[in-house]
Amino acid sequence: MNSFGTLFRLTSYGESHGAAIGGVIDGMPAGIEVDMDFIQSELARRKPGQSALTTARKEEDEVELLSGIFEGKTTGMPIGFLVRNTNQHSQDYENMRNVFRPSHADFTYEQKYGIRDYRGGGRSSARETISRVVAGAFAKLALRGLDINIKAYTQQVGDIILPGTYLDYDLDVAEQNAVRCPDETVAAKMAQLIMKVKEEGDTIGGVIACVIKGCPVGLGEPIYDKLQAKLGASMLSINAVKGFEYGLGFAGWHHNQNKQ
Amino acid sequence: MNSFGTLFRLTSYGESHGAAIGGVIDGMPAGIEVDMDFIQSELARRKPGQSALTTARKEEDEVELLSGIFEGKTTGMPIGFLVRNTNQHSQDYENMRNVFRPSHADFTYEQKYGIRDYRGGGRSSARETISRVVAGAFAKLALRGLDINIKAYTQQVGDIILPGTYLDYDLDVAEQNAVRCPDETVAAKMAQLIMKVKEEGDTIGGVIACVIKGCPVGLGEPIYDKLQAKLGASMLSINAVKGFEYGLGFAGWHHNQNKQ
Amino acid sequence: MNSFGTLFRLTSYGESHGAAIGGVIDGMPAGIEVDMDFIQSELARRKPGQSALTTARKEEDEVELLSGIFEGKTTGMPIGFLVRNTNQHSQDYENMRNVFRPSHADFTYEQKYGIRDYRGGGRSSARETISRVVAGAFAKLALRGLDINIKAYTQQVGDIILPGTYLDYDLDVAEQNAVRCPDETVAAKMAQLIMKVKEEGDTIGGVIACVIKGCPVGLGEPIYDKLQAKLGASMLSINAVKGFEYGLGFAGWHHNQNKQ
Amino acid sequence: MNSFGTLFRLTSYGESHGAAIGGVIDGMPAGIEVDMDFIQSELARRKPGQSALTTARKEEDEVELLSGIFEGKTTGMPIGFLVRNTNQHSQDYENMRNVFRPSHADFTYEQKYGIRDYRGGGRSSARETISRVVAGAFAKLALRGLDINIKAYTQQVGDIILPGTYLDYDLDVAEQNAVRCPDETVAAKMAQLIMKVKEEGDTIGGVIACVIKGCPVGLGEPIYDKLQAKLGASMLSINAVKGFEYGLGFAGWHHNQNKQ
Repeated sequence: MNSFGTLFRLTSYGESHGAAIGGVIDGMPAGIEVDMDFIQSELARRKPGQSALTTARKEEDEVELLSGIFEGKTTGMPIGFLVRNTNQHSQDYENMRNVFRPSHADFTYEQKYGIRDYRGGGRSSARETISRVVAGAFAKLALRGLDINIKAYTQQVGDIILPGTYLDYDLDVAEQNAVRCPDETVAAKMAQLIMKVKEEGDTIGGVIACVIKGCPVGLGEPIYDKLQAKLGASMLSINAVKGFEYGLGFAGWHHNQNKQ
Repeated sequence: MNSFGTLFRLTSYGESHGAAIGGVIDGMPAGIEVDMDFIQSELARRKPGQSALTTARKEEDEVELLSGIFEGKTTGMPIGFLVRNTNQHSQDYENMRNVFRPSHADFTYEQKYGIRDYRGGGRSSARETISRVVAGAFAKLALRGLDINIKAYTQQVGDIILPGTYLDYDLDVAEQNAVRCPDETVAAKMAQLIMKVKEEGDTIGGVIACVIKGCPVGLGEPIYDKLQAKLGASMLSINAVKGFEYGLGFAGWHHNQNKQ
Repeated sequence: MNSFGTLFRLTSYGESHGAAIGGVIDGMPAGIEVDMDFIQSELARRKPGQSALTTARKEEDEVELLSGIFEGKTTGMPIGFLVRNTNQHSQDYENMRNVFRPSHADFTYEQKYGIRDYRGGGRSSARETISRVVAGAFAKLALRGLDINIKAYTQQVGDIILPGTYLDYDLDVAEQNAVRCPDETVAAKMAQLIMKVKEEGDTIGGVIACVIKGCPVGLGEPIYDKLQAKLGASMLSINAVKGFEYGLGFAGWHHNQNKQ
Repeated sequence: MNSFGTLFRLTSYGESHGAAIGGVIDGMPAGIEVDMDFIQSELARRKPGQSALTTARKEEDEVELLSGIFEGKTTGMPIGFLVRNTNQHSQDYENMRNVFRPSHADFTYEQKYGIRDYRGGGRSSARETISRVVAGAFAKLALRGLDINIKAYTQQVGDIILPGTYLDYDLDVAEQNAVRCPDETVAAKMAQLIMKVKEEGDTIGGVIACVIKGCPVGLGEPIYDKLQAKLGASMLSINAVKGFEYGLGFAGWHHNQNKQ
């Protein structure tokens, strides 16, 4: 099903070339001021086409909030929202009607449902993350003032690895360049590599790191819905994510080795 | 939370005087033809102001489907929909800001959330049933051709009771009068009583009966989510519903008595 | 599925003539003293065979608590429990192998699962309510000291109706007779009727009333999981329950009439 | 909460030094033969103390099935089960009453619940996996005959890495040595390293690989509950697991590089 979360839950809908991407945020606490500039700025951060590095499509993503807000504050009622798709040149995708792109969900959808919206990936398009960004923005509004701090940045692109750990950098620097790396010199090298690969008609993978400060002790359920299990599931549900580590991650074996 | 159903699930949002009433239908089977005329006609049936008998407000309810449909058929993806509110004279409700209407949810919302959208009941308005009607229309489309038949009608208004059982009537007749009673003579008496009570500035209760034919054996879960438990919960979640019976209902004790 | 509840959840298992009836209580608050005498007394109240009026089978139901308790207090971890079945004369039920009892779940289980434990109703036996009673006892322990008061009593048996409302009786009196009616004279008449019907080889229905005092304002969800919807679903999931009313219930139409 | 899965769901309970570890399996298909030898052999595989390499505690884990089975076959009803704890020397753990072990859940439980069963980790003990093994054994019984094949093996212990991929080995060999590595020579080296580290009073990490063959196309939900998200969450919910990869995993960036 298309829902995520328990007490704070996003239910989303929408295809890349349908009328809109949208959803319902349920469980938003009441009485929170709705900072539209912040929500819109989060959407702007997600938008491809901000630089030459990513998908060139220009997307104007303006969110419309349809419910759950009264006199500028949340009411505790579900927040319906949508972002209209303005860039729907379906004809561009006509050639995808009979072709399954490798490593995409095309074949799987066709097999599972017997029908698929082949325009730009349909539901499996990365445009679906718009719903996550809107819900995430509301979540951040709900967390404001709680001294919980969440920051993500690019740690690796191809074989270019940011040295050291998050402790060695001012993570806010990451917001100032197109690859979102907190070191401008490494960021430039990453950008260069992406451009080189792009010229060759290819793409390249990487690693994103995220640091959460001020997380309350005991968050998550003790056994099956451990915090790391929920975080892992949410990350692995994003298109193209192939792995998840927390804490020392796979380097754990090494750590123990060192002690000897 | 604002979700209902397991395999076929409606998540809804919207206040009577906000921008829109809408929702997400999840679990709709793929490949079903979307009959817009039918969906719109179901919404028309719900609309108050069809006669002098119910709320006089005129509502033009046009549903916009935002996703989950491709070339006229469902794709198995979630169906986002919304119905814009066109009749939002909020000033009419200004006097409700400081008044809690008896037997309404006003006081409860204020206590639970510390804030409420007081315009016309906000989220607790009967306009919320628009979302149920849209999801119900899709459910009926999914059931088409399965020979499952669901018909509801008015069985009692005040002390005017339709005699006999559903077997004694052509239930389609119910669609031809404003009170939805399958006997035109009884329907006329019911209408008369409603008008009389209305003139006295009051409203009056009644009983709705529903007949489901062709229901598959074994539908529902064996213990806690029995079919009758789910049906009961769904009916009792509608504003102003105060009781639910199935089969013989409360007359069950009588039935046994008779056998003696 | 065999789970009930959201924040406080019972998952149960067991057939009347299998090894045991049991379950898991999840969401029990930590630090609550476990009053075994109380839990066992609740089980004793459920037990048939306490008088000549109900099923004559004698059942010794002793609950074993398997987890979630440390040094006499709950730990917040799931509480596994079971009650062994000691009265399993399966041969008594051999004749049910090829017979479907009317108004029982026998036929439905056979159709749905292609197999059924025909001994004494198997999973659909009223012995399943043992799990509910154990979970209910823990719920009552969790509510202790919160000044929430829950009392149920028999209001009607056949055509013998307890006159007036709950305000007219000391509900504790109901615990002192076998039919659980708070008026000893009416209770005697009810008992007499039950015995008469029993002699005729029949059973008879009735109505149970329940009064909850001190219920917090705003309990339940605003729309689909309204308090009355959850209460209705839980009652309608009990074997043989055919109807549910809250507040004025079906008498609601009458009430309005009276005002005229 | 202590449940895992949707259509096939395990709800579990139990502490390492309480009366029992157990659970309820819900959603087990009806009519499946219950192969007790297989279920018990799966429990035997889990058991520590099979070799000198792991925890030396000897555990005799015999499962008792309490419901959901009739004449040797599943009935579709929930299967209650339990494994008694026979090795409860609580006094051995008395010193843990006032000490929080590093990298264990001791401190977190104390903070979250204000109380904890400190004997051997209580609920957070790896003995909890007994419930998973029993449910997993039933899942395997349900999958029998569907030509779905699931095999796991040890790929790395410390810096000793099994070379190549799963295609290079007969994975059944893994069942023949204590470290569960499909190459006997590498297995011997891994065992040696574990023993060396153990002598130093330490433990060491590693990597487990799992190969699923015959998985149906389209398994999992399209967006949030993708197959990899559910697999990742289930693995990350096991004690001490710090990372999860599927497909190429973190090597993905490298793969693209190579193409250049």
